[in-house]
Amino acid sequence: MQFAAIPLNLLGDKTSADYLNTGMWSKKAIAEAKRYCDVNLAADTSDNGFTTVPTQAELKLNPDAAYVHYVANETIGGVEFDYIPETGDVPLIADMSSTILSRPVDVSKFAMIYAGAQKNIGPAGLCIVIIREDLLGKAAAQTPTLLNYETHATNGSMYNTPPTYSWYMAGLVFEWIKERGGLKAMGEINGRKAAKLYAAIDDSDFYANPVTKANRSWMNVPFTLADADLDAAFLEGAAEQGLITLKGHRSVGGMRASIYNAMPEEGVDALVAYMQAFERTQG
Amino acid sequence: MQFAAIPLNLLGDKTSADYLNTGMWSKKAIAEAKRYCDVNLAADTSDNGFTTVPTQAELKLNPDAAYVHYVANETIGGVEFDYIPETGDVPLIADMSSTILSRPVDVSKFAMIYAGAQKNIGPAGLCIVIIREDLLGKAAAQTPTLLNYETHATNGSMYNTPPTYSWYMAGLVFEWIKERGGLKAMGEINGRKAAKLYAAIDDSDFYANPVTKANRSWMNVPFTLADADLDAAFLEGAAEQGLITLKGHRSVGGMRASIYNAMPEEGVDALVAYMQAFERTQG
Repeated sequence: MQFAAIPLNLLGDKTSADYLNTGMWSKKAIAEAKRYCDVNLAADTSDNGFTTVPTQAELKLNPDAAYVHYVANETIGGVEFDYIPETGDVPLIADMSSTILSRPVDVSKFAMIYAGAQKNIGPAGLCIVIIREDLLGKAAAQTPTLLNYETHATNGSMYNTPPTYSWYMAGLVFEWIKERGGLKAMGEINGRKAAKLYAAIDDSDFYANPVTKANRSWMNVPFTLADADLDAAFLEGAAEQGLITLKGHRSVGGMRASIYNAMPEEGVDALVAYMQAFERTQG
Repeated sequence: MQFAAIPLNLLGDKTSADYLNTGMWSKKAIAEAKRYCDVNLAADTSDNGFTTVPTQAELKLNPDAAYVHYVANETIGGVEFDYIPETGDVPLIADMSSTILSRPVDVSKFAMIYAGAQKNIGPAGLCIVIIREDLLGKAAAQTPTLLNYETHATNGSMYNTPPTYSWYMAGLVFEWIKERGGLKAMGEINGRKAAKLYAAIDDSDFYANPVTKANRSWMNVPFTLADADLDAAFLEGAAEQGLITLKGHRSVGGMRASIYNAMPEEGVDALVAYMQAFERTQG
């Protein structure tokens, strides 16, 4: 829903916005934005199959853009920004659906952060928007009242009946994170989880991940087997050990391990052990 | 969200829509529709304080309207349509948030029915839209993709990540209704619940409900005490017996019993017994 809401709320008297294209979610956001404004592709890594993110120096930013939009983590390519883009006076907007709560983030660098709940927050059906107050009140005339961020800001997010149970569940998740030591502790755990899994992939000639090391996602780890004919056997054997939903997105194939906050470090250890055993017997 | 989506999706090449104003939800729908089209108030019962619904003969329908919109049950006034308006060739749209699943309904009479889940379906955060297929594909150019009913119809309601847990809960509720005998049985239970509560009100000089008998809501029963100074004592005594959330909406005061499907007949019996005891000791 934010894909349309962002240009509707934030264009103001501008006619153009900058978008970075680093994968499928970027593309969806761009396609919807094009219905409302001129989109300047400030960066596009489709040429390398979305295996990197653009560097700061590569960004072709338009100083007159209404805002700069990027997706901090692309779930299908498994590619993640290792820095926060500098955009000067132009408001920076990040889709953090798959990054939020995975580690500390400097919120002050952003004009707006938004995130679907279904990764690290709670049940699907809830979206969190963190927006700088000076960006409110500029919505286009035809903006549906419930898509206008000002409506929610001035009504404590209760202009309509909110998704109460999802709020409650999110609250429990926030408490759970605090009890574990907050985002700093989550970041340490998640960093270790990702490092272990990528090490297992890189230490092997049987498994491969194409993403530049610095841009690898901590949350979504895609990998391929040297012989795709073994994919089905890999998935079957994994399922027997309780290692499930490892099939990669149909657009890229292979495997994908989603290791959000809810996945304990022991789960990654079990996956690594299974991968090594599978390679020994089948590789 | 539907209040904006309805004109955005259904105006087509028309410029005007008919709305019936029978209470607060009607007014909200009308206010949002006015942002997108001319609204013809085909009926308006604000003159009598929303204590009736208009009769078929009283409807001033515009034969060139894009559609006719009404709210089948107004939760604050506690007023409910006892008939389905005849609108000829003009599509009829009903907000059934507080009526759906309370009894059988002849869906074939409607071009579109929509309902927030939070009454008789499941957790808040889910909205069901039942729409005639020939009404799809007419959305205004600027309609956000996720507000376009065609998007959901052609993607099995899974264009975006749907509110999965709310779906699951709604499925459990549907099974629960079936186990109890379906909507016919629910209608019989709900009819009895409402009849008992209104009888207790009407049989007393201490309690009152201003709504015309034929238009009284089966789901939301507002009532006042003869002496509003006793309201606090009534609510306190009720809470002691586990009878809660009986305070009326701040816009009308008094009491309001919400007796949706989840309220068993025994709950209504307990409320009636409490009301009678309170009248004996305090009335």
